Amino acid sequence: MKVLDVKNFSVPGYKAWGIHSGIKKTDKKDLAVIVSDREASVAGVFTKNRVKAACVLLDAARVKSGTGQAIIANSGCANACTGKRGLADARATAEIAARELGIKAESVYVASTGVIGEPLSMHKVRNGISTAVGLLTANGWEQAAEAIMTTDIYPKLAVVHEEIGGKTVTVAGIAKGSGMIHPNMATMLCFIVTDTNISAPMLKKSLLASTERSFNNITVDGDMSTNDMILCMANGAAGNKRPAQNSKDAKKFQACLDTVARSLAKQVVKDGEGATKFVEIEVRNAKNPVEAKRAAMAVAKSSLVKTALFGEDANWGRIMAALGCSGVEMDEARTDIYIGKAKLVEKGLGLGKHADRDATLALKQRDVQIVIDLHKGKGSAIVWTCDMSYEYVKINAAYRS
Amino acid sequence: MKVLDVKNFSVPGYKAWGIHSGIKKTDKKDLAVIVSDREASVAGVFTKNRVKAACVLLDAARVKSGTGQAIIANSGCANACTGKRGLADARATAEIAARELGIKAESVYVASTGVIGEPLSMHKVRNGISTAVGLLTANGWEQAAEAIMTTDIYPKLAVVHEEIGGKTVTVAGIAKGSGMIHPNMATMLCFIVTDTNISAPMLKKSLLASTERSFNNITVDGDMSTNDMILCMANGAAGNKRPAQNSKDAKKFQACLDTVARSLAKQVVKDGEGATKFVEIEVRNAKNPVEAKRAAMAVAKSSLVKTALFGEDANWGRIMAALGCSGVEMDEARTDIYIGKAKLVEKGLGLGKHADRDATLALKQRDVQIVIDLHKGKGSAIVWTCDMSYEYVKINAAYRS
Repeated sequence: MKVLDVKNFSVPGYKAWGIHSGIKKTDKKDLAVIVSDREASVAGVFTKNRVKAACVLLDAARVKSGTGQAIIANSGCANACTGKRGLADARATAEIAARELGIKAESVYVASTGVIGEPLSMHKVRNGISTAVGLLTANGWEQAAEAIMTTDIYPKLAVVHEEIGGKTVTVAGIAKGSGMIHPNMATMLCFIVTDTNISAPMLKKSLLASTERSFNNITVDGDMSTNDMILCMANGAAGNKRPAQNSKDAKKFQACLDTVARSLAKQVVKDGEGATKFVEIEVRNAKNPVEAKRAAMAVAKSSLVKTALFGEDANWGRIMAALGCSGVEMDEARTDIYIGKAKLVEKGLGLGKHADRDATLALKQRDVQIVIDLHKGKGSAIVWTCDMSYEYVKINAAYRS
Repeated sequence: MKVLDVKNFSVPGYKAWGIHSGIKKTDKKDLAVIVSDREASVAGVFTKNRVKAACVLLDAARVKSGTGQAIIANSGCANACTGKRGLADARATAEIAARELGIKAESVYVASTGVIGEPLSMHKVRNGISTAVGLLTANGWEQAAEAIMTTDIYPKLAVVHEEIGGKTVTVAGIAKGSGMIHPNMATMLCFIVTDTNISAPMLKKSLLASTERSFNNITVDGDMSTNDMILCMANGAAGNKRPAQNSKDAKKFQACLDTVARSLAKQVVKDGEGATKFVEIEVRNAKNPVEAKRAAMAVAKSSLVKTALFGEDANWGRIMAALGCSGVEMDEARTDIYIGKAKLVEKGLGLGKHADRDATLALKQRDVQIVIDLHKGKGSAIVWTCDMSYEYVKINAAYRS
């Protein structure tokens, strides 16, 4: 597999673009169009929030077909909590796009992100789609990535090449960050496209596996936005032989998808609202992998841990307290904690000033690694998060203004 | 019941005081002593965190006796994650106090709050107890309340009078706030004393009921500090006839305890780290009371809701998204939301600019009320929280420094 530069790449058979349609009050881009030149296999992962945006309801129904050809995504308005009108607007968005693109309305997927509870301005959507479709180009991915941003600072893209079934295939993706890094109800959107020829069921299986190893390491089930979604299209333009279940080619494809998804997930964390640090939290030797992830997430979600990280304070007591509240089996007197390369806690006890100084030095870096060894079993997990800064509060206090 | 002014009150048979012993780096008070002139009934509620401070382990064992006579509490050092040494130090603290007070060591309860992972300076504790015992006085409660503060801005006290069994009894309490209002692992301490003559089992039952109606409405089980505790002493100095189970007197005592506990719990919220608003969240007509509380807590805990409250932004979509993630049965299309007196959402849909303006005005007040009607059943719950401000991050980024 070859990881490519994200500047000006293209994916055979696809076009993309992003424009400013006026949905956002600022002059920033707010409407993206992605289209394949032929019907593609499509798979999707959607929010588990009981309150689902209109686009989620629409797409979750459409993805059952396993096929599709285009994605229309807007930022600035979530079209969530908008009732019947919202559903009608999402459906109309797909119809308008289908007409402009000359494809079936049922083949168009819709995604939205932004303020909840306000209706989409269909006038702007209509004009925006018309303009964007006219500008579609093979390497318009950066424009599309910009058009789905809300509080993100930079667009998020990833692209890889691989040899599959005798052909070079491309797997590429764009994403927008959830405001908070454990997306405590701030939307995460991700669109992955590939020219690989692969069946819809295998695409679905691969996407679920990749999500578990990427986005689900920065989010928590049951703690998602009304609009979160990951869509993956595979149009087969590469002309490769379809990989068989569990074949070497299937594994290669999975690795490509994993790489793209993980890269995007990490970019989401690095661009967390107000984030000054990228933090990897690894829990080793928990009772099992599920408990390991639960413990790591408890630490990653703690506001007290996150503010201490911002303050570059090796306050390991907060890590221990978060572990104690996580509900996983743990024994304080067995627990070791490392920050960077510094062992800070051994068998539940602090190792003193030298360890504290080394850990504090490690905390001054942009990338911070925390390792927790529970000595309880053989389960491990790694999650990614960021710190919590003044800026986080500022961004979220003023979000609608 | 008569709610009294907290200035210079006393509780028959008790003395209290607080001093600066040097455990805190600043010159603020850090050691409190509370003592009864006779053995009292004692009940306690302790943190459910798996990682428990030494004092919690000690007191949870002692309270099984149902009796006690004194409480020694220090701030500045939590004596948590300190292993065998920590337990020995907690025990020694009780022994030193017992010697100074001329009572049994087993009758002394110990409480600590502050930085985790550092040992208590027993030299300072020893001298501090000696000094504080020499200064004990019947109306030293404000000093005691000051000595248990960490990031609290003001001391928290409450006191009521009531006629029980032919006598006037006093129920009084002091508390220190958890840093975060849903105490996401920041310590909450509360000590309630009364001269009521009441059995230990009835005291325990009453304390559990009061806790459920007060502190458990600002906290979440399984999400507590290593040091949280509520201790309640009843020394019988009032000479009242012991109230019988379910008697009118038992109910009067319960009401006193409820009033004191609820007053202290609300004070904890109002003095939340960086709080600029006191927020009451009521969920009505949930499937049952448990679901109502769960839904209210999900809203109260959401960082996105809390930052919007700080920003005085009537961003009800975040409330809806938090409800959707709470795990309770709810139907967006049935849900109404009020902020202050303004009905902002009806059957899941925003009611427009006028409602938005009225809600925004309500959000500009110091005290904010949010009511959510799920129209699902008959369960209701009220919880209290505060907003999340820049100051919260600042306090917690620099806590150990």
